[in-house]
Amino acid sequence: MQNRRAFLKTAALAALAPAAVAEQAWSREPATTGFSINQGSTGERMKMTFFPYELKLKHVFTVATYSRTTTPDVQVEITYEGLTGYGEASMPPYLGETMESVMSFLQKVDLEQFADPFQLEDILAYVDSLSPRDTAAKAAVDIALHDLVGKLLGAPWYKLWGLDKTKAPSTTFTIGIDTPDVVRAKTKECADRFNILKVKLGRDNDKQMIETIRSVTDLPIAVDANQGWTDRSRALDMLHWLKGQGVVMVEQPLPKERLDDSAWLTERSPLPIFADESLQRLVDVPRMKGAFNGINIKLMKCTGMREARQMVTVAHALGMRAMVGCMTETSCAVSAAAQFSPLVDFADLDGNLLIANDRFRGMEVVKGKITLNDLPGIGVVTR
Amino acid sequence: MQNRRAFLKTAALAALAPAAVAEQAWSREPATTGFSINQGSTGERMKMTFFPYELKLKHVFTVATYSRTTTPDVQVEITYEGLTGYGEASMPPYLGETMESVMSFLQKVDLEQFADPFQLEDILAYVDSLSPRDTAAKAAVDIALHDLVGKLLGAPWYKLWGLDKTKAPSTTFTIGIDTPDVVRAKTKECADRFNILKVKLGRDNDKQMIETIRSVTDLPIAVDANQGWTDRSRALDMLHWLKGQGVVMVEQPLPKERLDDSAWLTERSPLPIFADESLQRLVDVPRMKGAFNGINIKLMKCTGMREARQMVTVAHALGMRAMVGCMTETSCAVSAAAQFSPLVDFADLDGNLLIANDRFRGMEVVKGKITLNDLPGIGVVTR
Repeated sequence: MQNRRAFLKTAALAALAPAAVAEQAWSREPATTGFSINQGSTGERMKMTFFPYELKLKHVFTVATYSRTTTPDVQVEITYEGLTGYGEASMPPYLGETMESVMSFLQKVDLEQFADPFQLEDILAYVDSLSPRDTAAKAAVDIALHDLVGKLLGAPWYKLWGLDKTKAPSTTFTIGIDTPDVVRAKTKECADRFNILKVKLGRDNDKQMIETIRSVTDLPIAVDANQGWTDRSRALDMLHWLKGQGVVMVEQPLPKERLDDSAWLTERSPLPIFADESLQRLVDVPRMKGAFNGINIKLMKCTGMREARQMVTVAHALGMRAMVGCMTETSCAVSAAAQFSPLVDFADLDGNLLIANDRFRGMEVVKGKITLNDLPGIGVVTR
Repeated sequence: MQNRRAFLKTAALAALAPAAVAEQAWSREPATTGFSINQGSTGERMKMTFFPYELKLKHVFTVATYSRTTTPDVQVEITYEGLTGYGEASMPPYLGETMESVMSFLQKVDLEQFADPFQLEDILAYVDSLSPRDTAAKAAVDIALHDLVGKLLGAPWYKLWGLDKTKAPSTTFTIGIDTPDVVRAKTKECADRFNILKVKLGRDNDKQMIETIRSVTDLPIAVDANQGWTDRSRALDMLHWLKGQGVVMVEQPLPKERLDDSAWLTERSPLPIFADESLQRLVDVPRMKGAFNGINIKLMKCTGMREARQMVTVAHALGMRAMVGCMTETSCAVSAAAQFSPLVDFADLDGNLLIANDRFRGMEVVKGKITLNDLPGIGVVTR
């Protein structure tokens, strides 16, 4: 504490001198004050490394269109001043990125041209300018830079964003589509550990899935229809039925491009409707107004934490709500997404719980609730 | 540096333990690591004090509707852990706040209910909830809290926001309405010190003002019409004439409530048109889309730095530009506003240059350009 006060006093005196002299005073700042982000640059540059890391799923993962047992993933590490920032790109196949496309994108990224990691606005604009898509690859760089900056500042991002970690919501946990016996068994297994369940609908057994879960638990249910309903009137009937079953929200009931039908549905819906496939990035958010009550924000789709945080701001300014989702991914990306979760109404951050080879420990789900630790940056350590 | 690494290592090990044990490990963190925002709370609470401070203007200040020689102002100080955050409310009479209303509002603010200043989201929502208006009073609290949080983190806000301070724009400097001889003399006096001038139009001598300045300098000119033009067709003619005179942007050409006429004008305008009186806060920004090319953000109107930064995000997401303005105020509020200036296209931050009794040194105008220092928080020291 004493050192920091002396440091601030020296800084204040330096500031009274003309700008050039003040700069000198900063760089003369003695080492006894410890680390200072304001000291003159050491000339050291950021180094980025990355490697493929295939995620092994604990159970076969099934959505409306396919099943799989692994998810391709690339791990990114950025080192600077003895610290390492961790980032990650997860590439579920339906999003179009692959191990090859991510590795190829990351090879193009030259962070050494930047003096330090703090200039996130410019660095991330540069990264985004390298290609029109590659959002997961961009998110990996964004997450690693945020982790690094948080570590340099000695603070977790929820705190840098001015948020109260105790206001993080409960996460949903997804009950996969399966036979009634398996669904009952899985639901029983999770009913005590989570406060809200998630079900992916959009097949012909939608009502059966809900009824099977309801035979076991009264927990609130979030529904992800994955664009699976095509008739808006039947979708509205389904929404009324779901409300009667204790469902609390529905993601993407209609095909993603049908915003007019979605607006019709949202206007009449007894449940809040969230956009998922209909949007990807910040630039898409204004178009969602009217068509949905809220938006689902996923780091792998929106290029990372900086844009995600801005999407919340814009959604709220437009009178919409926000939720945060994830892919199957390690605790790295999940913990990064959890940093802004105190701002959202729903969180679907169970991706790390689905894999058998998580490299990290970070955000934990305690009694169903997202529980942030106080580690700086995104709050992770390697196992 | 060594201390910080040891600190992070201890922290990482603590995080591997279950949550409760990790919390204990944090609070056992030895004092030798210096200040840590993650350590257990000392139980100390924030203390806020405030006092009236009448700003003495160097010259009589004249706009379209009145003249004055002083501006009422209230200074706010928030202390916590031996540090002081500075804030300020400036109350030019046309905005409706007074010394009395600000003092009365601040008396209602109870910061001691909050454990620390980091939870800006909740603290500022509470402050905002205390009354429907009082935006300058709210800004004073917001600025002081930002200064304090930046000091606790040891970083200036432009850095916490990921911005490059060298990208801060030049500030405009206002040439007051006066006789041609005085205008010529004033323009000569500033022409070497600034890169862009500002002129408040909206009277019957608009063309004469511009021609008088043009007889002395070719510097670009920003025009603030202060709602002074009432006929949209004549306004459009004026915009074309102004463009021919080297004017680069126009603020608020038409009365504030006439958004349809403003949209008509913006669609046809040869110059970018910025909203000023037409908007106040974040919630107003979406309505500006289409009616203006950009928005002018002023801390005293929008409740402070947090909302201002969000207004830039929303304006950009809606395809609008942003500028930052100020009132006559000390280097405290001006330096706070300058922190996000690297994100804006125009800055009108000359308010501190107009007063004779500035309590602070902070942001400086060097060769016409906003020049941020590296002091933590809003970057000010008392004189």
